[in-house]
Amino acid sequence: MHILILGAAGMVGRKLTEKLVRDGRLGNRDITRMTLQDVVAPAKPAGASIPIELVTSDFADPKTAAPLVAHKPEVIFHLAAIVSGEAEADFDKGYRINLDGTRYLIDAIRAIGGGYKPRLVFTSSIAVFGAPFPDKIGDEFIHTPLTSYGTQKSICEMLIADYTRKGFLDGIGIRLPTICVRPGAPNKAASGFFSNIIREPLAGKEAILPVSEDVRHWHASPRSAVGFLVHAGTMDLQAMGPRRNLSMPGMSVTVGEQIAALERVAGKNVVARIKRETDPVITGIVSGWPRDFDTARALKLGFTTAEKTFDDIIRIHIEDELGGKFVD
Amino acid sequence: MHILILGAAGMVGRKLTEKLVRDGRLGNRDITRMTLQDVVAPAKPAGASIPIELVTSDFADPKTAAPLVAHKPEVIFHLAAIVSGEAEADFDKGYRINLDGTRYLIDAIRAIGGGYKPRLVFTSSIAVFGAPFPDKIGDEFIHTPLTSYGTQKSICEMLIADYTRKGFLDGIGIRLPTICVRPGAPNKAASGFFSNIIREPLAGKEAILPVSEDVRHWHASPRSAVGFLVHAGTMDLQAMGPRRNLSMPGMSVTVGEQIAALERVAGKNVVARIKRETDPVITGIVSGWPRDFDTARALKLGFTTAEKTFDDIIRIHIEDELGGKFVD
Repeated sequence: MHILILGAAGMVGRKLTEKLVRDGRLGNRDITRMTLQDVVAPAKPAGASIPIELVTSDFADPKTAAPLVAHKPEVIFHLAAIVSGEAEADFDKGYRINLDGTRYLIDAIRAIGGGYKPRLVFTSSIAVFGAPFPDKIGDEFIHTPLTSYGTQKSICEMLIADYTRKGFLDGIGIRLPTICVRPGAPNKAASGFFSNIIREPLAGKEAILPVSEDVRHWHASPRSAVGFLVHAGTMDLQAMGPRRNLSMPGMSVTVGEQIAALERVAGKNVVARIKRETDPVITGIVSGWPRDFDTARALKLGFTTAEKTFDDIIRIHIEDELGGKFVD
Repeated sequence: MHILILGAAGMVGRKLTEKLVRDGRLGNRDITRMTLQDVVAPAKPAGASIPIELVTSDFADPKTAAPLVAHKPEVIFHLAAIVSGEAEADFDKGYRINLDGTRYLIDAIRAIGGGYKPRLVFTSSIAVFGAPFPDKIGDEFIHTPLTSYGTQKSICEMLIADYTRKGFLDGIGIRLPTICVRPGAPNKAASGFFSNIIREPLAGKEAILPVSEDVRHWHASPRSAVGFLVHAGTMDLQAMGPRRNLSMPGMSVTVGEQIAALERVAGKNVVARIKRETDPVITGIVSGWPRDFDTARALKLGFTTAEKTFDDIIRIHIEDELGGKFVD
């Protein structure tokens, strides 16, 4: 089985690649070949025995998609996107990459024809939803995004459902929760603090909390995100019918509950590294974000998180990113 | 005030043009100029004193939009589309006209800049919804279209909301009910019979009813459709906030109720011209269509229908299309 990962150099792409290389298979089929694409060179996973081709190309270029699908990968993970903040700051770039790029891809798949109908797993986002919300956002709640990024993700969901309905591909779109704890350097995105306040104190560094502790948000660990992608790549998609996009399970917690979990897992010294500096701009942005979901459909379709509590989310970070240790 | 109508040669476009020419104004502003565009030459309304420019052009051509908006029309009614059946039969043509054409238009508006921010009234459709439905489809029900046409309409709604949010234009999308009674020749569209069974018998001709009498559907008269467009062209759009698309009011009736109304308005002889010939294909298609709506938001925003009963819908047809007479 040949797997293509678009946007393979991103955090989720790297973790998905590592998991697939480690397993050597997707579902019950051996992986015989992988193609990793991104706009910056994706890293070749160490010790991979599967032949891996690395492709550096611009997803917004109309010529990018055709050679990537020419060898007819059976499963395509489409993680390529520019993030919310950049799509908002550069309107044209956002539409070029997040919308046009996806159209080039699905049209390139369709152009191959001859019965080629790959599974296409698309990472959508809870940014497709815009306030005001019900207490829990259910599987039939309207998309009224309040960002260009959310608009582009929702449009791609629509396209993938229609191309699937027409038999051009076999698509599924999964709306990932905010990934927490996001590894790497502190992120300047408005959502960055949800991870910063856990990751930085565990590394012995200070972190700024710019909102009040009663702010509630929707989280899943990187391990869960990879698990969702693998399940989307292997499950029976016929069971979904024509509604091919859905919100993934996650955990709704307040910032106060995040901090309490950090104290339980890592102690008072670590928590003391969180500094409160209210930022009215970030507070305003975050007030328009989803807080909680009812993901009955995803659960019924077999999507499950790797964590049961926010304590688990912190432990997963310590295990997967910190080699089991943190700075007390 | 300069008004541009795209898709002016269609049934709703013609009726809107006639109304605007008759009134000479939109809201409290005199119309000083009109531009009527369509892929076939739009007819010049008889006796119009307003200068009217007729443009025959292909909405799917990337060069069509710029000259149409170059003179900065203050209000643009965007009715240009190929219909559901054709968009389903010709996939590429549907996306070219119903999606790409709209993007060319809004990008041409944006390219003018310099504070140009026209009101854009977009005709969307209840085809953005796909079964299964609740008993009444509310203002927050998800779009899961089951046709390419519905997909394209929903995507255009998203784009217009985002371009509005970014300040490039001042948009509103209105989802029209099925227009009944549709004037003109019997329509081969799957929905054609809803109008055929009223219009043809009133003209002394037979009509085929291909579904059972308990089929329920959502209707509004052509007069209501024009009223919705005029209201959308004049109302205070700030009151809508960022959710710029909404379902229009209509009337939910069964085919049996349509026929009972026809008998009340026109008598037994007319009703006797309806022949029952069940068509399982049409029955299947129609079973996936919306039946009833809760349009609380549109009603609150001042959208109203011209009819209170289905009897009124028939009387409007007799008044507006048949000069007050029908064949007994």
